Amino acid sequence: MGHVIYTGKAKQMWSTDDPEVLRVVYLDQATALNGKKKDQIQGKGQLNNEISTLIFTYLNAKGVKTHFIKKISATEELVKKVEIIPLEAVTRNIATGHFVTRFGVEDGLVFPTPVEETYYKSDALDDPFINRSQILALGLATEDELAEIWQLSRQVNELLKALFAKAGLILVDFKLEFGRLGDGTLVLADEFSPDNCRLWDQQTRSHLDKDVYRKDLGDLTPVYAEVLHRLKKVLEG
Amino acid sequence: MGHVIYTGKAKQMWSTDDPEVLRVVYLDQATALNGKKKDQIQGKGQLNNEISTLIFTYLNAKGVKTHFIKKISATEELVKKVEIIPLEAVTRNIATGHFVTRFGVEDGLVFPTPVEETYYKSDALDDPFINRSQILALGLATEDELAEIWQLSRQVNELLKALFAKAGLILVDFKLEFGRLGDGTLVLADEFSPDNCRLWDQQTRSHLDKDVYRKDLGDLTPVYAEVLHRLKKVLEG
Ligand SMILES: Nc1ncnc2c1ncn2[C@@H]1O[C@H](COP(=O)(O)OP(=O)(O)OP(=O)(O)O)[C@@H](O)[C@H]1O
Ligand SMILES: Nc1ncnc2c1ncn2[C@@H]1O[C@H](COP(=O)(O)OP(=O)(O)OP(=O)(O)O)[C@@H](O)[C@H]1O
Ligand SMILES: [Mg+2]
Ligand SMILES: [Mg+2]
Repeated sequence: MGHVIYTGKAKQMWSTDDPEVLRVVYLDQATALNGKKKDQIQGKGQLNNEISTLIFTYLNAKGVKTHFIKKISATEELVKKVEIIPLEAVTRNIATGHFVTRFGVEDGLVFPTPVEETYYKSDALDDPFINRSQILALGLATEDELAEIWQLSRQVNELLKALFAKAGLILVDFKLEFGRLGDGTLVLADEFSPDNCRLWDQQTRSHLDKDVYRKDLGDLTPVYAEVLHRLKKVLEG
Repeated sequence: MGHVIYTGKAKQMWSTDDPEVLRVVYLDQATALNGKKKDQIQGKGQLNNEISTLIFTYLNAKGVKTHFIKKISATEELVKKVEIIPLEAVTRNIATGHFVTRFGVEDGLVFPTPVEETYYKSDALDDPFINRSQILALGLATEDELAEIWQLSRQVNELLKALFAKAGLILVDFKLEFGRLGDGTLVLADEFSPDNCRLWDQQTRSHLDKDVYRKDLGDLTPVYAEVLHRLKKVLEG
């Protein structure tokens, strides 16, 4: 069964017999405001595992290099172990959330080209917004890695905007994490679920993502279940 | 005498008979914490006018395009009127101040290459830190203008690091503003004084800049007078 190597806010990472493979366990936990708001939500782990599995399988098939190997149970998957680059790469197609309060623009503004932001993954520092020259000065990633991160993020954005559109959903924004395999190859890691993206219904503009929890708009599980249901219909015909 | 077109925290901008020329009046005022701390400091306006005049004259002579025309009295100068690009371009050679609290690095860390940061000039939004893709999405500057801003900032950094070094001072960091002339030419605008840069004594590492005011380390005017004195010795022999 291996041992726990990290317990995060939404997942637990376990070692396996293979030193290059980790087992991810999706937890029934939701957090917001950097952990200040926290709740147990039954069924969330299973839903995110299923959604992320569908997305990563789709990305792998489209030639995007990812850490994803396979789903092994309702709440578990196997992934290639990486050294995580301590950056969150955020892509925004539409202005909402922090962007709106920070820059005083209208909620729902569609950007002419996607906005790309990086945050320094550091709980102690509260994940500060960081720019390219700061990343290079602090040695958090190399120029080549940053170029690859944004090239992959753009590819993911194009693929998933189109995929979610078929499911009647607008991909508003999302956060990705990347890591290096043993041989230095950069791959997409972590998860892709309504926990780390915003999805709006094309017709009603209702939120089908963690904003339902952040903003106390109702129950989370039926919303995530709806996203899963729509994705399945598109992907499995 | 024209009329006041803008009263800022440190300067007043007046129109002149020539629609392409402004008169700048340096005020005896110091502010910090985005205006929350504010004091009258006799002699400060005159010192900053003299220091900024020396620096801009030096930069003009080195071929850097600036708005500076000439000093016309102890506290006044004439400049070319520009449309200010609403960005502050900050260059850091050494980590201190905000950078240290934001990223948890050691005060005094020398960067391998200068860190470059932009802030969105907006009092209502508290001058938020902004990145390149956000600037482009909000249409605050074009790609070409950003390239020119950083090319000019690097040139200014190289020239002034060397100049201040001759005066026994380390140029730690500084903030520049840029604007467009009527014909679209991008030029360095605003001022260059100890109000918007950090200068440390090479030997003692004591502060010879506005940190003396921000951190209540003593009287500001003798410190600014010392900077002026040292610059004059270097520039006027
Ligand atoms: N393939 C991988 N190899 C190693 N670590 C990974 C891999 N994929 C994701 N991780 C890391 O495992 C953790 C997943 O846990 P979780 O998402 O719950 O963390 P979190 O609470 O969001 O906190 P943080 O991301 O700030 O550590 C994250 O730290 C993530 O960066
Ligand atoms: N050549 C120029 N033409 C037009 N405006 C200029 C020029 N040079 C500087 N400015 C602007 O004139 C003002 C100078 O005033 P001051 O430096 O006191 O402003 P401030 O209080 O720092 O506030 P802010 O810079 O946020 O407006 C600034 O707004 C600056 O951007
Ligand atoms: Mg996470
Ligand atoms: Mg100013």
